[in-house]
Amino acid sequence: MAFYECHGAKGWISLESTVRYIKDNYPDIFVIADAKRGDIGNTSKMYAKAFLENMPFDAITVAPYMGEDSVTPFLSYKDKWIVLLALTSNKGADDFQYHDEDGIKLFERVLSVSQKWGNINNMMYVVGATRADTLKDIRQLVPDHFLLVPGVGAQGGSLEEVAKYGLNSKCGLLVNSSRGIIFADSTENFDKVAGEKAKEIQVEMEKHLRQHKLI
Amino acid sequence: MAFYECHGAKGWISLESTVRYIKDNYPDIFVIADAKRGDIGNTSKMYAKAFLENMPFDAITVAPYMGEDSVTPFLSYKDKWIVLLALTSNKGADDFQYHDEDGIKLFERVLSVSQKWGNINNMMYVVGATRADTLKDIRQLVPDHFLLVPGVGAQGGSLEEVAKYGLNSKCGLLVNSSRGIIFADSTENFDKVAGEKAKEIQVEMEKHLRQHKLI
Repeated sequence: MAFYECHGAKGWISLESTVRYIKDNYPDIFVIADAKRGDIGNTSKMYAKAFLENMPFDAITVAPYMGEDSVTPFLSYKDKWIVLLALTSNKGADDFQYHDEDGIKLFERVLSVSQKWGNINNMMYVVGATRADTLKDIRQLVPDHFLLVPGVGAQGGSLEEVAKYGLNSKCGLLVNSSRGIIFADSTENFDKVAGEKAKEIQVEMEKHLRQHKLI
Repeated sequence: MAFYECHGAKGWISLESTVRYIKDNYPDIFVIADAKRGDIGNTSKMYAKAFLENMPFDAITVAPYMGEDSVTPFLSYKDKWIVLLALTSNKGADDFQYHDEDGIKLFERVLSVSQKWGNINNMMYVVGATRADTLKDIRQLVPDHFLLVPGVGAQGGSLEEVAKYGLNSKCGLLVNSSRGIIFADSTENFDKVAGEKAKEIQVEMEKHLRQHKLI
C-alpha cells in the first residue's frame, strides 16, 4: 500500500485502520508497507516506529540511497522485516542503479553491503520482475534472501521467468501485482474482479511451484 | 517536517492543518516537505498530488535511487519545487553516494543527469553541511541551482564553511537546522527557545551574506 488513505463505501478510511482490520481479522496475512522510506537515523527511527510499532505492518520497503544509518533503524523490531530496494522494476532504474564501479553495479553493491546490516530473517530485497534476466546473477549474490518481485501485471513482467531465475530451494520469492489487481475494475464489482485477478496469479504461481517441486 | 503529526496544546494536529495554517497566515514563508519520496511514476504522481496540490507545500524532497520516472512527476506543478537528494549529511552517505564510475561519483551523476529533468526554477539539491569541503566541486557542476543544506546544528556542520563554498552570486543557499531548533528545549518554553536558536542562525547567516556582499 503506497498511499495513506483509501476510499471505502462509507467514506475515507485511514491506512492505520485498514492495516489493523487486516491483522485483526486475518493475522496470518503478511502485510507490507510499500513506503520506500529512508532518512537520517533519527527520522528513520520514527518512520520505523510509525509503521512497525504504531501500525501493525509486518514489513516496510526501504530506499538505500542514504546508506547504513538510514536503513538499520528499521531492523530493530523483532519478527519484522525490511525490504530494501535493489533493482527496481521501472524504466528509471537504468539511470543510477547500474552505475558501475570496477565491474560492480550500484544495485550489486546495495545487495552486498547491506548484508552486513541485516540477515535472511529480517531483510528482503526488491528486484523488479521486468529485470528477470538479471535475477540469475542476483541469486548468486543473495542465494538465501527472500526477493520481493513487483512488476508482474501492469508493468509487464513475466511470472514464468521470475520463477525460473528467482526461486531457490525454499521458494524465496514474494511476487507482487498491485495495479493489475486493484485497478482491474473501477465499477462496483471491483472487489470481485480484484479477487479473480489475484486468483489467476495464485494459480499460475502454484503451477510454477509444482514444476520446481516446491509444493 | 519529516513526520505526519505533531503534538500541540490541544492534542494531535495533522500535518495538513499545520502547513495550511502556516500558508494561510504567513503566505511568504517557503514550506518544504522533507518527505524524501521516490517511487514508480504512478505512485510518485500521487505523492506529488498529496504534497503539492492537496497540501500547500512549496517544495518536497525527493530521493533519486529509482531515476527519472520516479522524479519527474513532482516537476509538473507550476511554482513548486523539488529538492533532490544528492550528497546527504549523514554518515551513511559514504556507503553508496561515492560509488565511482570512471571518476564520476554517484552523487555527481545525480547532479548532472537530473539537470535534464528540471531547471533552476523548479529543482534544488540537498548537499549536507557536513560535506562542506565538497561544496566547492559541487558548485562547478550546479553553479546556478539552489542548494538545500541540512546538517548545521545537531549534525555539526559549519555555517561559515557552507557560506564560503556554497554561496553563488545570487546567494543560492537554503540552510536548514531542524533538531538544533525544534528540540533545543523540551519544557513549556520550547517555543521561546526555538525562536532564540533560529534567530542565532539567522544572525550568523546575515553576517556571512554581508561578508559576501549579497545584502
